[in-house]
Amino acid sequence: MKPIKVGLLGLGTVGTGVVRIVENHQEDLKKQVGSEIEIVKIVVSDVNKQRSIAVAPDKLTEDAWEVIRNPEIDVIIEVIGGTTTTKEYIVEALNLGKHVVTANKDLMALYGGELLEIAQRNSSDIYYEASVAGGIPIIRTLVDGFSSDRITKIMGIVNGTTNYILTKMTQEGASYADVLKEAQELGYAEADPTSDVEGLDAARKMAILARLGFHTNVDLNDVSVKGISSVTKEDIQYAKRLGYQLKLLGIAECDENQVSVSVQPTMVSNSHPIASVNGVFNAVLVTGEAVGETMFYGAGAGELPTATSIVADLVAVSKNMKLGISGKRVNAMYKPTVLKTDEQISSKYFLLLEVADRAGVLAQITQELAKFDVSLQSVLQQANEHSNTAEIIVITHDASKAAITSLLETFNSMDVIHQVKSVYRVEG
Amino acid sequence: MKPIKVGLLGLGTVGTGVVRIVENHQEDLKKQVGSEIEIVKIVVSDVNKQRSIAVAPDKLTEDAWEVIRNPEIDVIIEVIGGTTTTKEYIVEALNLGKHVVTANKDLMALYGGELLEIAQRNSSDIYYEASVAGGIPIIRTLVDGFSSDRITKIMGIVNGTTNYILTKMTQEGASYADVLKEAQELGYAEADPTSDVEGLDAARKMAILARLGFHTNVDLNDVSVKGISSVTKEDIQYAKRLGYQLKLLGIAECDENQVSVSVQPTMVSNSHPIASVNGVFNAVLVTGEAVGETMFYGAGAGELPTATSIVADLVAVSKNMKLGISGKRVNAMYKPTVLKTDEQISSKYFLLLEVADRAGVLAQITQELAKFDVSLQSVLQQANEHSNTAEIIVITHDASKAAITSLLETFNSMDVIHQVKSVYRVEG
Repeated sequence: MKPIKVGLLGLGTVGTGVVRIVENHQEDLKKQVGSEIEIVKIVVSDVNKQRSIAVAPDKLTEDAWEVIRNPEIDVIIEVIGGTTTTKEYIVEALNLGKHVVTANKDLMALYGGELLEIAQRNSSDIYYEASVAGGIPIIRTLVDGFSSDRITKIMGIVNGTTNYILTKMTQEGASYADVLKEAQELGYAEADPTSDVEGLDAARKMAILARLGFHTNVDLNDVSVKGISSVTKEDIQYAKRLGYQLKLLGIAECDENQVSVSVQPTMVSNSHPIASVNGVFNAVLVTGEAVGETMFYGAGAGELPTATSIVADLVAVSKNMKLGISGKRVNAMYKPTVLKTDEQISSKYFLLLEVADRAGVLAQITQELAKFDVSLQSVLQQANEHSNTAEIIVITHDASKAAITSLLETFNSMDVIHQVKSVYRVEG
Repeated sequence: MKPIKVGLLGLGTVGTGVVRIVENHQEDLKKQVGSEIEIVKIVVSDVNKQRSIAVAPDKLTEDAWEVIRNPEIDVIIEVIGGTTTTKEYIVEALNLGKHVVTANKDLMALYGGELLEIAQRNSSDIYYEASVAGGIPIIRTLVDGFSSDRITKIMGIVNGTTNYILTKMTQEGASYADVLKEAQELGYAEADPTSDVEGLDAARKMAILARLGFHTNVDLNDVSVKGISSVTKEDIQYAKRLGYQLKLLGIAECDENQVSVSVQPTMVSNSHPIASVNGVFNAVLVTGEAVGETMFYGAGAGELPTATSIVADLVAVSKNMKLGISGKRVNAMYKPTVLKTDEQISSKYFLLLEVADRAGVLAQITQELAKFDVSLQSVLQQANEHSNTAEIIVITHDASKAAITSLLETFNSMDVIHQVKSVYRVEG
């Protein structure tokens, strides 16, 4: 049988992992696909660089276009990242009828709709399991496993860096700044951590998941995003005391074809399975109308999980080639995108207010809550020892985002409320 | 496009769910498959029985063979259960080139290897996702998601009834007998609960999972099984005190192509993600060489999750038909089955001993442990208030099953040890 020929763009840690897995599992892969899989060309930035694996020098090249346009090559694996030149590479590869496997979440979040269309037009496959939660086969699960159900909610911890930081803050009572510094030293956070800590990375992944789950082309700009950089030690302590864990959650919901997608630090009840997902682990909870809650848990990133995920996609793409069914994966976004309004987005909220410590304040606050039709699940007031202020913690029942926004505006204008210190969504 | 024609064997709660989902999701299914899916015949035991759904009378029949042999029908869905006549039905359907979707774990555990072979010979599909953990797409995950990795361990809570019982015993301090009775009243346990509580149901599911994960034909007789009927309140209390949850775990392991599969009540460390899986929920933790630990959590059974799972299989089978790739799913058991010996099966153990309350007993016991090369993680002795006996709790480091068996024989022959009260495997 003719071998499947692969061109690999990038030989960093993930690319190296891909080469290793394809070599070490050659026998197993052959049994699954029915023919050999051979990485024939690898694009690197410097062919003379020292590497941790032995690669035949004639396989290495610095010319990506040469590889993309090589008529011998069936599949392009892209692990170089970036969204401009990389997009050109991938578009050209698809237009030439090659299949593409990528781990590039930025690319898929920004141009996923467009790329899927180009692929379909050319009967090419584009697979991207590794772009979201490397160690969890969540994309194939959404595409295949839920084919007979309607997904109503996808909620998850999809960024390992922020989960590591929040876990450490919770377990050690440490501050955000200290834990971030430690995470950077350990290599869990980038020197410029913005994309992770401000929730942008999670937003990209949630856009990808929402599209697959709800069959509608959610734009990255449709995702409402808040990161963890303003989470305080105090917030974490309150969460703990009240039986919650503070987690950066991506939440995508769909009711009657109206969707909302958001990323924000969220108080998760200890009894909820997602509350015990700690450290760099990821978890995605999918709620189906019929199947109820299903949770997928695993490593979010890391070279080996990501490389494994890429090779699993390579196997799927190779099988499709052998079977002559390339480009037929059903991931059509056949529904128009209708976003929920703030009136329609509903959840419980945690509010932490600093107020004047005098009689009648709590009554005033609860009156405002009632006015905006926000009902209380619990309320707690405690005096500050060293000042004439008090803190009030409110947990609401389900309230609309619009009501909470109006309520907070009113709170900000009230004299007895010195400060709205924290506002968090509550789940579970 | 020609519709896919389905014959349904059985119209109990799951069968009814299948009919409802296929009707309600007709539009979505059509978009996914490319043609309509039509249930044309339903086999029931009494066509005149009152039913909760409206079914055209001419669709109902009491003659299963008529449906199996109907040349119009493409796919048989089997939800009648049983393993004798049902097996004949399925063999005939496959031999006639029809595809089969079944939720029948007993059938697949007993005759899976044989049925897969018959299917392959006839280029027919046989899909059985609903046979294990209805609400978790674990079978397709093992088949597709881990195709590029080597699975070394599959560990799970795969029986909801026993997990419900153990959860209640833990949360309420209730006895096994009381909780079983309650579970029977609530319909969570059968009138004859043997298959669940003695671990047989879990063993069947583990045999199915081990075959898929390790590519080897694990026989049901190869599974070592112990149920929960002898678990005491005291065991649960000790587990709690020591930071463990007692769970009925199925554990399948594979090292260098040698496998072991077992089901037994196991102490699971609270910090392990499986420890927080409570009630009727199921969870399966899959460890891949590269990907590390991945856990899948969801409803284990229930009409809707099971029916949803069946329809997802129906979608997959229908897509394969349209694509002309039926019978090509790779689930080959291409490796010979080599079982681990008791010397090779290794884990930590919890031992609860009733001993004479006098000096030197602990020393004697630790000497025996050393003799059998079993090292201690922790040991705890406490006197019984109302007798001159004491209890010793030992948690070992990793020890071979063979060493523990010999050790227990020795313990049983020692005068100072009145009774080996409990022995549990420990995980996490």
